[in-house]
Amino acid sequence: MSTAPIDYADASADVRAVYDDIKKTRNVPDVNNFWKYLARDPATLRRTWESIKEVMAPGALDPLTKEMVYLAVSVTNGCAYCIASHTAAARKAGMTDAMFGELMAVTGMANETNRLANGYRVPVDVAFSK
Amino acid sequence: MSTAPIDYADASADVRAVYDDIKKTRNVPDVNNFWKYLARDPATLRRTWESIKEVMAPGALDPLTKEMVYLAVSVTNGCAYCIASHTAAARKAGMTDAMFGELMAVTGMANETNRLANGYRVPVDVAFSK
Amino acid sequence: MSTAPIDYADASADVRAVYDDIKKTRNVPDVNNFWKYLARDPATLRRTWESIKEVMAPGALDPLTKEMVYLAVSVTNGCAYCIASHTAAARKAGMTDAMFGELMAVTGMANETNRLANGYRVPVDVAFSK
Amino acid sequence: MSTAPIDYADASADVRAVYDDIKKTRNVPDVNNFWKYLARDPATLRRTWESIKEVMAPGALDPLTKEMVYLAVSVTNGCAYCIASHTAAARKAGMTDAMFGELMAVTGMANETNRLANGYRVPVDVAFSK
Amino acid sequence: MSTAPIDYADASADVRAVYDDIKKTRNVPDVNNFWKYLARDPATLRRTWESIKEVMAPGALDPLTKEMVYLAVSVTNGCAYCIASHTAAARKAGMTDAMFGELMAVTGMANETNRLANGYRVPVDVAFSK
Amino acid sequence: MSTAPIDYADASADVRAVYDDIKKTRNVPDVNNFWKYLARDPATLRRTWESIKEVMAPGALDPLTKEMVYLAVSVTNGCAYCIASHTAAARKAGMTDAMFGELMAVTGMANETNRLANGYRVPVDVAFSK
Repeated sequence: MSTAPIDYADASADVRAVYDDIKKTRNVPDVNNFWKYLARDPATLRRTWESIKEVMAPGALDPLTKEMVYLAVSVTNGCAYCIASHTAAARKAGMTDAMFGELMAVTGMANETNRLANGYRVPVDVAFSK
Repeated sequence: MSTAPIDYADASADVRAVYDDIKKTRNVPDVNNFWKYLARDPATLRRTWESIKEVMAPGALDPLTKEMVYLAVSVTNGCAYCIASHTAAARKAGMTDAMFGELMAVTGMANETNRLANGYRVPVDVAFSK
Repeated sequence: MSTAPIDYADASADVRAVYDDIKKTRNVPDVNNFWKYLARDPATLRRTWESIKEVMAPGALDPLTKEMVYLAVSVTNGCAYCIASHTAAARKAGMTDAMFGELMAVTGMANETNRLANGYRVPVDVAFSK
Repeated sequence: MSTAPIDYADASADVRAVYDDIKKTRNVPDVNNFWKYLARDPATLRRTWESIKEVMAPGALDPLTKEMVYLAVSVTNGCAYCIASHTAAARKAGMTDAMFGELMAVTGMANETNRLANGYRVPVDVAFSK
Repeated sequence: MSTAPIDYADASADVRAVYDDIKKTRNVPDVNNFWKYLARDPATLRRTWESIKEVMAPGALDPLTKEMVYLAVSVTNGCAYCIASHTAAARKAGMTDAMFGELMAVTGMANETNRLANGYRVPVDVAFSK
Repeated sequence: MSTAPIDYADASADVRAVYDDIKKTRNVPDVNNFWKYLARDPATLRRTWESIKEVMAPGALDPLTKEMVYLAVSVTNGCAYCIASHTAAARKAGMTDAMFGELMAVTGMANETNRLANGYRVPVDVAFSK
């Protein structure tokens, strides 16, 4: 199985079109390793990029909030690559040291109390049942 | 093992002190089931409340952002009680339908791409290695 | 697909042999639902019981410690059935209210600090690298 | 605690017997690191190998399908060792680049929609309740 | 926040278009609860359906294999809704009782050995490092 | 964002006070990397240490049991740093090779049967429903 990442120079027209759109949308000179590895499956590359582009665009939530949520999920799942890349993305979007500290504190507490609720088998309050 | 939740009327002075602080801090008439079950272990009840109170207070991140991060983590972990209670808390803090929709979209995408990064064994870009 | 649990009266000789061994080993009048559902696949029923029997037998760790570890893992994974059944098993093996409270406190803290270590990308100390 | 892997030359008769069976069953010249580390606990080594041997044997599902399922679970859990070893095993069993791409796409989507179902608190359809 | 599922009769034209495509593609008289809840966010409904439709289409892997992988991931994550719906989908695609039994056995073993590899801190074999 | 760990010589008075208490409580010459990275957020450093100190103190459960539970959770979550540091802590508290082997065996089995219970959708026995 070919496992090498695909650089722009070696990419097919389809893959280049995605790379070009990533570079233009994010205003960066090259795409990250994530995209270069996904490029082994051009259909997944295109679909994933189109979804990310739509989901991470400014909307009811601003880009910084979205990046911090992405980071909190990645930290919860323990995905080293995703933690590194989304820490960088969140910083670029404006996350300060103080914001990072509070984000980690909330992420940690949520992981703790999720298990306390599981272990004590707490039934959902009537008021929360929608 | 005593498994019944502890209501205010049946609580010890230590437990009542925590319940009173929760009710005052959150301006609510009663505490949620989570606290009534934790009350079986007064030390854990007190410690957890003091941590939550400190971590969820307004700071570099506003309370709504913190509640949405809490919800994203709870959804990732699949904790039914926590999803119900923090959806309610986020709504109370101002989460609109549109914000909820985007929050779930980001949470879903993060869980997807975390696994794509794992499966393709993507090495961390030099630029992200701190 | 047949999804009904298999009761002793309706079980094949192979399944009955496993049920009999569970009842004798644990000194109980009937097997739990877990085994009645696994019985749909007699090979998995037998293999799982033999493994559990070997792993949970007294050894360097006593049965109570083993049941508490089982519960801590089940709470971390959020498996409702397993939390219920292993809470019951741990109580039967001697877990007191105070022990349960401390077990949940440790389980919660471990889930919290696991994510803090992830998020802060803490490198392993040289002293811990074996 | 002894943490070094146990090579064939240094292994006890019990451990050698398991190594020999692995090498014969899989037609390989040596066992992987996984087995050499598990060998620190000969009982776990033997029990784990016997279970793997039984579970991964051809049956109603062919070996390639089983290896791909193993890989999808390992990717979901983020186990780096398991992802590396089961990618190799799946390739050896016939997984092509195209199959790997689709396997990752399904694994990613499942992880995404699992969280959407959690977050939207979707009740099980009556038709699915067995 | 509006939390009620959206039935066809009450759906907007955009949502109806997605429902119609699901019904036609799957040849079913109505859509599952999952889609009726996602419909609260039409953009996520459309994007998720288009991705699922593309990912689950026959390709290098057949639809039954894809559904079984989806089920293995959902079981690993403990998503009750997803387990119920994808068990039904896999059965419809041809999963027999024997196949289900083997699928669960592999899923269980993978979850076990993932943790053994973590706990013994097994380094990746040179042969697997790509 | 400042990502370097904070050594004692460069620490503020607040951070030094926590470091001193860790060193005194654990009777160690220096603190682990975990604390040096957390020190970037003094409030989280202090809160986390105070919680850990309280939770891990001898009580109804002895320190060795608590460390082994911590390790079982860390292995389940796949946190490499935590596995390394709590393996060292458990050994220091008296965990033998035989105890480690049984701890991993129980942790592995719990992760396996959690998924079997999920996949077979086993309903909680009436006897376990509290």
